[in-house]
Amino acid sequence: MRYSNLFGKTLRDFPKDEVSVNAKYLLRAGFIDKLMAGSFTLLPLGFRVVEKIKQIIRDEMDATGANEMLMPLLHPKEIWNETGRWETAKGIMFQLKKDNKEYGLSFTHEEIVMDLIRKRTQSFKDFPIKIYHFSTKFRDEPRAKSGILRGREFIMKDLYSAHTSKEDMEKYYWEVAKAYIKTFKRMGLNAKIVEAAGGVFTDAHTHEFQVLCEQGEDTIYYCDSCDFAQNKEIFEGKGGKPCPKCKKGKIIEAKAIEVGNIFPLGTMYSEKMHFHFTDRNGSKKPVVLASYGIGPTRLLGTLVEVFHDDKGIIWPKSVAPYGAHLISINSNEKADSVYRALEKEGIEVLYDDRETGAGEKFADADLIGIPVRLVVSPKTENRIEYKERGSEKIELLPLEDVLKKLK
Amino acid sequence: MRYSNLFGKTLRDFPKDEVSVNAKYLLRAGFIDKLMAGSFTLLPLGFRVVEKIKQIIRDEMDATGANEMLMPLLHPKEIWNETGRWETAKGIMFQLKKDNKEYGLSFTHEEIVMDLIRKRTQSFKDFPIKIYHFSTKFRDEPRAKSGILRGREFIMKDLYSAHTSKEDMEKYYWEVAKAYIKTFKRMGLNAKIVEAAGGVFTDAHTHEFQVLCEQGEDTIYYCDSCDFAQNKEIFEGKGGKPCPKCKKGKIIEAKAIEVGNIFPLGTMYSEKMHFHFTDRNGSKKPVVLASYGIGPTRLLGTLVEVFHDDKGIIWPKSVAPYGAHLISINSNEKADSVYRALEKEGIEVLYDDRETGAGEKFADADLIGIPVRLVVSPKTENRIEYKERGSEKIELLPLEDVLKKLK
Repeated sequence: MRYSNLFGKTLRDFPKDEVSVNAKYLLRAGFIDKLMAGSFTLLPLGFRVVEKIKQIIRDEMDATGANEMLMPLLHPKEIWNETGRWETAKGIMFQLKKDNKEYGLSFTHEEIVMDLIRKRTQSFKDFPIKIYHFSTKFRDEPRAKSGILRGREFIMKDLYSAHTSKEDMEKYYWEVAKAYIKTFKRMGLNAKIVEAAGGVFTDAHTHEFQVLCEQGEDTIYYCDSCDFAQNKEIFEGKGGKPCPKCKKGKIIEAKAIEVGNIFPLGTMYSEKMHFHFTDRNGSKKPVVLASYGIGPTRLLGTLVEVFHDDKGIIWPKSVAPYGAHLISINSNEKADSVYRALEKEGIEVLYDDRETGAGEKFADADLIGIPVRLVVSPKTENRIEYKERGSEKIELLPLEDVLKKLK
Repeated sequence: MRYSNLFGKTLRDFPKDEVSVNAKYLLRAGFIDKLMAGSFTLLPLGFRVVEKIKQIIRDEMDATGANEMLMPLLHPKEIWNETGRWETAKGIMFQLKKDNKEYGLSFTHEEIVMDLIRKRTQSFKDFPIKIYHFSTKFRDEPRAKSGILRGREFIMKDLYSAHTSKEDMEKYYWEVAKAYIKTFKRMGLNAKIVEAAGGVFTDAHTHEFQVLCEQGEDTIYYCDSCDFAQNKEIFEGKGGKPCPKCKKGKIIEAKAIEVGNIFPLGTMYSEKMHFHFTDRNGSKKPVVLASYGIGPTRLLGTLVEVFHDDKGIIWPKSVAPYGAHLISINSNEKADSVYRALEKEGIEVLYDDRETGAGEKFADADLIGIPVRLVVSPKTENRIEYKERGSEKIELLPLEDVLKKLK
């Protein structure tokens, strides 16, 4: 992509009304634009990162045998009334009335998925069901200071699984937990599995995936020796004390960003919505539901919080919008041919072909944060300057070596 | 994909409350499910078709130099007020109020894209701009008898282009028109470019892409000799009369389905929203806007209306959910090995591995409409029965010939 053709160029200054690092950097570097509090456009650069994040999630969800699909966003009140959440979730849900019909906007999809399952299944043979979608969620959040970490409109991958027994649900629940850890690792993030409360979803304990980060909104308590970890909401104790589980380790208090959560919902939704499958013996039983969320747009922000320096973003390779950032300094003809050679080899390149000073181009490259910067100038002669974003080392390499490194 | 693992199996009967062919077939074959009037879940099969449709559209939009991105769906009233459409589009737009703030749901994005452009551009150097997204649209449509052809919630690809002159806009406008014709052709659809009125978008004439189909909601008048074609709303004349343009041909009246539309919007949005760019001479001028829509979910329905017989759907290869439908008749071990061989070669296969009678499997294959049916049974010995969905010819082929045909 030629930078001259890219919509959403870098801005000269940081936006004045943003306090979070992710919003400051993503807005200034041209990844997102703000429509209103908690609502952002994904500009072409940001869209590319989110698509790469989604593809990693999709791979790992498909590997568990889940089916991708897409459910609507505008829901009839009647279905939300079946569980009582039309009333209990009124604070978070956007609701509207038109021509005497009432609708709610998707803040989650448990009721809608349960309605779908009851229409499309009958007997135990139809289970287990594992279905997910990437869709828009609307939540009227009171806090909106964390940039794209907490949107009032955002993208979520939500997976729902329905089972004929608690045991079958629990087996898949922990399989998904493992897939989540792998998903985050592929983006360079080490997530901890943390016990938490179920909020408006369930009375049971649930599990969050938390990435340690000083800018996180959440406080977690974890053991420095075993896998014990709890969210502030449910932890009874203090940092510095011995671990209540292994008795050996020490409890650490830390700030963290929640990047995913999983909910062992049980039979509540099935019972309240009067759906019962027929088991092997012909009797009617409620299905056991679980739901599993990851927010790709929240991950976009989390990655910036975790991977940046004072010059800009430092994208992990797996989610970078492009593999290389090619800069021409008064050498557009030579740079054009390098650009064509890279594209021909299937390497994704952002090519800064503007008539702009070298200083501005270098500063923009650091701000945008593509993993490899390539410079072609009269000084580089028939070679290319190669530099990784996270390192200070600069090499002068022939084209074939650059291609080898980038493949 | 093993059919036993696929969510959304075929239903025994056609749904009773649907009159349109597309809704009957898509619901029964397991491509979609209905949440409420005009609102459908894309089940895994339907989701796959829509993703293929989207990829074809994406290819052709990218080829015009357009950038993909994603704009929000929940919009602040203030921006819609700038053009007066908060009031004039009240009938079609879902509007809501929460905590004293008013919002509209996206029925289109002109105002939102214009707000984005005014924040992110300044001078003539920043133009032309060509940006698009696939996003959800909400329209409170009074008619909802046409299945997925007219949803109250649906997916749309909307492209917006902004230019410094009318001439530059018109050049790109006709480039996109060509890209649209190519897009539809790649799905097996011959679309006519038909002049039409601009509705709530513009006072200018616009262009629709219409596919002839007896089940279409639209009536068009076209010349059987030249490229003259107009929508009923603006055509002044009758079918059977001589063509007002070429004077040679005869005007045909026909039913058609609108699969796309393009709008030469002009400077109205820029002027009403007080955005002016700086031109070469330092003076301020309004930008010339155009918008371009294609509905992937409407295409899903159109394809079924155009490509079906009394047994079910007949998908064109380019958008079929899978390339082959493999049926095992009492030969699961042999069929498993064929399935593995096909998957290894990268062929997308739906494998009916159920313990069900041959009759049901054949009927389901015809209903689902995948282009090639493969049967493995004790009778086929070490060969595979190969049959195309649109033909009656059955061949017995060795695996390597099947692979060659499917690649």
